[in-house]
Amino acid sequence: MLILVTNDDGIHAPGIKALSLALAAIGKVVVVAPERERSAIGHGITMHKPLRITEVPWEEPIGKGLAINGTPADCVKLALDALLEEPPAMVVSGINRGENLGTDVLYSGTVSGAIEGCINGRPSLAVSLVGEGEFDFTFAASFTARLAREILKRGLPDGTLLNLNIPHLPEAEIRGIAITRLGRRRYINTVSCRQDPRGRAYYWLAGEKEDLDQGPDTDIGALSRGLISLTPLQLDLTHYAFQEELSTYLPFLWPGHGNK
Amino acid sequence: MLILVTNDDGIHAPGIKALSLALAAIGKVVVVAPERERSAIGHGITMHKPLRITEVPWEEPIGKGLAINGTPADCVKLALDALLEEPPAMVVSGINRGENLGTDVLYSGTVSGAIEGCINGRPSLAVSLVGEGEFDFTFAASFTARLAREILKRGLPDGTLLNLNIPHLPEAEIRGIAITRLGRRRYINTVSCRQDPRGRAYYWLAGEKEDLDQGPDTDIGALSRGLISLTPLQLDLTHYAFQEELSTYLPFLWPGHGNK
Repeated sequence: MLILVTNDDGIHAPGIKALSLALAAIGKVVVVAPERERSAIGHGITMHKPLRITEVPWEEPIGKGLAINGTPADCVKLALDALLEEPPAMVVSGINRGENLGTDVLYSGTVSGAIEGCINGRPSLAVSLVGEGEFDFTFAASFTARLAREILKRGLPDGTLLNLNIPHLPEAEIRGIAITRLGRRRYINTVSCRQDPRGRAYYWLAGEKEDLDQGPDTDIGALSRGLISLTPLQLDLTHYAFQEELSTYLPFLWPGHGNK
Repeated sequence: MLILVTNDDGIHAPGIKALSLALAAIGKVVVVAPERERSAIGHGITMHKPLRITEVPWEEPIGKGLAINGTPADCVKLALDALLEEPPAMVVSGINRGENLGTDVLYSGTVSGAIEGCINGRPSLAVSLVGEGEFDFTFAASFTARLAREILKRGLPDGTLLNLNIPHLPEAEIRGIAITRLGRRRYINTVSCRQDPRGRAYYWLAGEKEDLDQGPDTDIGALSRGLISLTPLQLDLTHYAFQEELSTYLPFLWPGHGNK
């Protein structure tokens, strides 16, 4: 069973080392990851420059990893279409240094690696460790391997991926696991304006989180209660409930050319 | 009524010129767009380098545009948080040179501009012109202005954005408008491997479209029949229908720590 592992913190990050070695106990792991950090790149792909591959030494039994000068989605595309001899049984992206919760999954490089696996019909999983400072990935990696074993056994429905967020707490303090939905979050006061030595303005994006929906059944709510959050995702953004209302706009847009 | 206009083809693209001038008939337009093409960057934001703003001359009554060394999402964040004196009544992203249909909306810079507007509570619209070669944006711009006028009048529900794709056909050949859902599409044979003059391999991503779901009620299906497609989108990727099934995995992951 081939397992493709990628991330967005870059191939030298400790999270992908821990993840790949834990998964090596349940399958043959191939690591294809960005050569440097690609956080907050969203679901980007690289079409305007050529991609190159560099081998990186890796602990046994994996032996080597492949570093790409691109995004997590690039890594998955390249692996599936050019590097792997057979389709992987699973794509796992992570373990990210920091959370990927709620609306932020749309910006997340970690989740984009799993989205690309899902688009291409592979059971896919994104994993993040929620906290700050010095991370210990030991528990998160072994928990992820248990989940991966279950997914390999049962599969996932077509078009489904999983987003896993694990609190960075001592194992005894983690209160359990919750199946969640995505919360809603945005950032406020995102822009900091400064002046360079020549008096020209420049701007940094940063900002503070504002949680618009952190209900107990959301991923954000679960983490705030010390739970592991496991959210099933799908890729259809259609707002079905608004279709009928929207059709009432049509007579005003182009008379005689209404809903076909 | 302030209307914020952005795109991902870059501020010098003809589509944003045509769009901004058509919208100037219904509100006060502010143009904030990437200084160069940012296609297929997904919903990326720029956190690792400072953003700079350059003024670009623009046709009256708009007078000037603001070019940013960042992504469409950066442009919208910067505009909302630092550049505009009041919140815009609407965010419009486009008109893109080429389609943004089905699963591709996850990669789309054009759609990401509208997503960022939506996250920040603004009615938002992404517009693309579907075709190839030399584009004439005249009809698409005036149609978009009619839709924008309707949105300004009625608003959109919180967390909703619209994705508009207009066929690049003579007006008389456009058969009407359809309210659609997103189709499903992926790319196959995406990787082309070459050798540089020193014999090292490099890879280009490209590939052919493979439509997995192009039913008549999808955006892909509508365009194939010469219709304008208008798809309402929302930002919650949660796969609700799979939550219950997924909860049956839990007993195997960490006995005694089931669904909380």
